[in-house]
Amino acid sequence: MNTPIPTPSRLDGVWSPVLTPFNADLSPSVPRMVRHCRWLLERGVGLSIFGTNSEANSLSVAEKRRLLDAVLASGVAPGRLMPGTGACALPDVIELTRHAVGAGCGGVLMLPPFYYKGVGDEGLFRSYAHVIDRVADARLRIYLYHIPAVSQVAIGMALIERLLKAFPGTIAGIKDSSGDWANTSAMLREFQPQGFDVFAGTEALLLPTLQGGGAGCITATGNVNPAPIVELFKHWRDADAEARQKSLIETRTVFQRLPMIAAMKAAIAWQSGDPGWSVLRPPLVELDATQRGQLVTDLQACGFTIADAQSLAAPA
Amino acid sequence: MNTPIPTPSRLDGVWSPVLTPFNADLSPSVPRMVRHCRWLLERGVGLSIFGTNSEANSLSVAEKRRLLDAVLASGVAPGRLMPGTGACALPDVIELTRHAVGAGCGGVLMLPPFYYKGVGDEGLFRSYAHVIDRVADARLRIYLYHIPAVSQVAIGMALIERLLKAFPGTIAGIKDSSGDWANTSAMLREFQPQGFDVFAGTEALLLPTLQGGGAGCITATGNVNPAPIVELFKHWRDADAEARQKSLIETRTVFQRLPMIAAMKAAIAWQSGDPGWSVLRPPLVELDATQRGQLVTDLQACGFTIADAQSLAAPA
Repeated sequence: MNTPIPTPSRLDGVWSPVLTPFNADLSPSVPRMVRHCRWLLERGVGLSIFGTNSEANSLSVAEKRRLLDAVLASGVAPGRLMPGTGACALPDVIELTRHAVGAGCGGVLMLPPFYYKGVGDEGLFRSYAHVIDRVADARLRIYLYHIPAVSQVAIGMALIERLLKAFPGTIAGIKDSSGDWANTSAMLREFQPQGFDVFAGTEALLLPTLQGGGAGCITATGNVNPAPIVELFKHWRDADAEARQKSLIETRTVFQRLPMIAAMKAAIAWQSGDPGWSVLRPPLVELDATQRGQLVTDLQACGFTIADAQSLAAPA
Repeated sequence: MNTPIPTPSRLDGVWSPVLTPFNADLSPSVPRMVRHCRWLLERGVGLSIFGTNSEANSLSVAEKRRLLDAVLASGVAPGRLMPGTGACALPDVIELTRHAVGAGCGGVLMLPPFYYKGVGDEGLFRSYAHVIDRVADARLRIYLYHIPAVSQVAIGMALIERLLKAFPGTIAGIKDSSGDWANTSAMLREFQPQGFDVFAGTEALLLPTLQGGGAGCITATGNVNPAPIVELFKHWRDADAEARQKSLIETRTVFQRLPMIAAMKAAIAWQSGDPGWSVLRPPLVELDATQRGQLVTDLQACGFTIADAQSLAAPA
């Protein structure tokens, strides 16, 4: 390829941590992954492959590189990809980030190192600084990934301020999965005006995030309810925005009251008629029969039908 | 090598998660690591390389393989090695565990996958079962690694019971770093009589662990205070055992009231005259000057001198 890869432009809209389908032997199912990515793009959803809901930390770096390459080889525009590249070990972060930036990805979503708890901002700052130094590519756009309930390592306001000052242009924004509106609104007030793009970590906060000047949302349930979420993003200034927001929350609740990753995979298995979609990699486990039955009943009550995602079945 | 590698025998005694020294560029310092391993072995301490205090989760699998190979190439008996091989991603666990078992290591210390919180025993059981199935080697001896304050994923009594029943001989024991004596004593009572070897996660509980029939301890401060801990293990039935235990706790406290990994590295830097020993990989940070000064004062009060570890300096 001789065309130089352009510097990514700012990202916005609705993105989703793409579910990672597995084969029965627990290896990633590349054909299902590629079909799912294309299905999401057709509905206007950007691809945050390798997020929490992608079971990304259950994948090796080599598996992630192969999946990213397969998605790109299928013809997906690299600018529509924002792979998660954060990990406990900085060499792993550097390797996958380099690979993503070299491929022209629109950005990367980066967890802080999350094994050690109670580490200070100095250590977290050094972690990001070391990765930026080693990747050494002006095209790098880092979206910080704040998900304290899972990572147990928070990215606070003071750390963001210090990173923005040290690496303007490279520190591009954040996914705020705290679920704490006070936190999201503080970031919208302090940092969004500096060009630091704030994405809510859930579509349940999409409307207030956009009203506060934010960029959009990166949300797990984008995997299963993409079109209505994208509709709210497109029409958030319309009179029916509050009603759309309310409806999105109702659908999200169906997934949220179950183990969410298992529930989303079960929903796609049901809609696509492909039971292979329900496989998770340990330590996560699939829904039991009772949970599956309840899920289908609840989804039908929300207007979901099996017709929506027939194309997600694995190729015969 | 044509000699078949024998099945490991049961392990006991004092083991230490070996500190991982780094160069200024944050790459692992192989010569310092090898010297430190040999220094510990000369003092009777077994090598749990790649534990929490080894910054193991800050290392890539490739780095860990290279370090393990370098230690073995230096002539260390593989039976004196119990590498930590647990990780978030099962392919990483499988790769490093296979490598360790193939090299004849005495055992492996295995964290559960630790990114997802609140996972149930079914998922943790499947995680260990999948690794055992894929490693597929009768020589595999797994020491479970229970360190809930850091991993945030506990290994409880019911899970141990289920694993022992399913994989007798392979599930060999546990490092209990809960610091909760009620937990350690419950395991000593329930599982030690079945040949499941309980190691305290701290020398502060070495004497009661041995009195309760346990195997010994795997302790961070073995890195810096090896000989006195080994002395207690050898003489725990003697009249002065309580006094020895008390003295070990006093020394441990010197390290425990500071960020412990940084403090141990600073102690070795001071004792060896090699400031390179004080480097940590982010997100961990070194002690500041005040903390270093306090550490040296406290260590001198405990009888530490700079003569003890001169041989740990990097080769000129």
